[in-house]
Amino acid sequence: AAMAGWGWARTVRGLLLDVSGVLYDGGADGGVPIAGSAEALRRIKASGLKLHLCTNETQETRENFVGKLHALGFDVSVAEVTAPAPAACRLLKERGLRPHLLVHNDLIPEFADVDKTNPNCVVLGDAAENFTYANLNEAFRLLIGMEKPVLISLGKGRYYKETDGLKLDVGAYMKALEYACDVQAEVVGKPAKRFFEAALAELGVPPEQAVMIGDDIENDVGGAQRCGMRALQVRTGKYRPSDENHPKVKPDAYVNNLAEAVDIILQQQ
Amino acid sequence: AAMAGWGWARTVRGLLLDVSGVLYDGGADGGVPIAGSAEALRRIKASGLKLHLCTNETQETRENFVGKLHALGFDVSVAEVTAPAPAACRLLKERGLRPHLLVHNDLIPEFADVDKTNPNCVVLGDAAENFTYANLNEAFRLLIGMEKPVLISLGKGRYYKETDGLKLDVGAYMKALEYACDVQAEVVGKPAKRFFEAALAELGVPPEQAVMIGDDIENDVGGAQRCGMRALQVRTGKYRPSDENHPKVKPDAYVNNLAEAVDIILQQQ
Repeated sequence: AAMAGWGWARTVRGLLLDVSGVLYDGGADGGVPIAGSAEALRRIKASGLKLHLCTNETQETRENFVGKLHALGFDVSVAEVTAPAPAACRLLKERGLRPHLLVHNDLIPEFADVDKTNPNCVVLGDAAENFTYANLNEAFRLLIGMEKPVLISLGKGRYYKETDGLKLDVGAYMKALEYACDVQAEVVGKPAKRFFEAALAELGVPPEQAVMIGDDIENDVGGAQRCGMRALQVRTGKYRPSDENHPKVKPDAYVNNLAEAVDIILQQQ
Repeated sequence: AAMAGWGWARTVRGLLLDVSGVLYDGGADGGVPIAGSAEALRRIKASGLKLHLCTNETQETRENFVGKLHALGFDVSVAEVTAPAPAACRLLKERGLRPHLLVHNDLIPEFADVDKTNPNCVVLGDAAENFTYANLNEAFRLLIGMEKPVLISLGKGRYYKETDGLKLDVGAYMKALEYACDVQAEVVGKPAKRFFEAALAELGVPPEQAVMIGDDIENDVGGAQRCGMRALQVRTGKYRPSDENHPKVKPDAYVNNLAEAVDIILQQQ
């Protein structure tokens, strides 16, 4: 990334970071850190810039997620993470919705305080191996049996990258149920404006002084820009060269990785 | 169905019948015939009207399918059935495509003569329990790794009815892969015009003298009408009262079941 065009970075007071594909690549083996990212995180914190993680991770509770990040060398706490499941719980309670959960087993504790009897909506997360035909069919039957089907999707990502390759994300299964039931899902998580606004409130910085750094051109970059933030795409994680020809979304800059983004932003401070 | 408005039935010379939801409801138990349908089939044949079956069935070979129908009391032969898999095999050979198959195990013999080495496309059928996360992810990775992904879907149905309830059909999984890979599937089977035209050629009757009878408002009725045929929706199988408010498709008539359709058509002859 050339330094030209980075003048806006002088006004940056806080960073929102995507996690998978930016800090580390996940995987059955626990994942591997992306080179330079743990050091970059330390440098942000040392600089006095504010920092918050904004993830669509729904394969485990925030507690477990943060524990895994710790083990990989990242110094973060649960309070520094905005994730879809707690946001969904707030929405469910506000609207008196009782979910049927089609999510990863390890996410279920996040919904411990939610009434799940006699479901009147379906909550879909990145269920991975739980996306069996039987489980998807069960969610389908519940939805098509409702007078007004309510489908809540924890993100709408197409795919993500793990250490052994690309993996289908929740968005693909959201589309399957949307089509089968002729319903439009409500997305909780990136790129929903309300979700970014919640993350910004946690960050404590207005959108025009914040920058989002992610590997997902649509859900990280496009979503953040629609909230008035700057947004950078890293060339790590699920990044593919074809992203640079996206018909609708153009990041404020591309960077090779988080470390490079932090270098440039700190130089501009 | 009132007799008024059925004058067109005097010109009918051939019937195309959908199978699941019209002749029988499928199920793990082999399925059950829909009351009156076997007798209706005999009456059509005795009347001298031409008859052909036009199905999107892709859970087994035509041989097995016809054997199952025989056991349920339906007098039909393989030559009387137009189904997606043989149509897909013709298309694959025409275009030099080598498929990766994501289909039901029992359908695989239909592709015995097709080169499946080093796949350059994905063929998706109603794979049912084979729609595991691992299998869908494998198809996804193949597609997203292709310079120009080719996804061929054997039908695009949203769901069908079995004896134990509604089941997600191939269309839902087609939408999942379309979204994940940013590709548009090519549909072989109903409602594709080319597929109906092949069935009409087998029937030996021009579209204006043919009527399609099915339980799927979009794939049977809408597809047949776009080919210039009349089309009836039966109130059996996956039929739901809300189908009668479909925003785009209006059948030439509703009938309670196949037997009623045949009664009225034969009375008009």
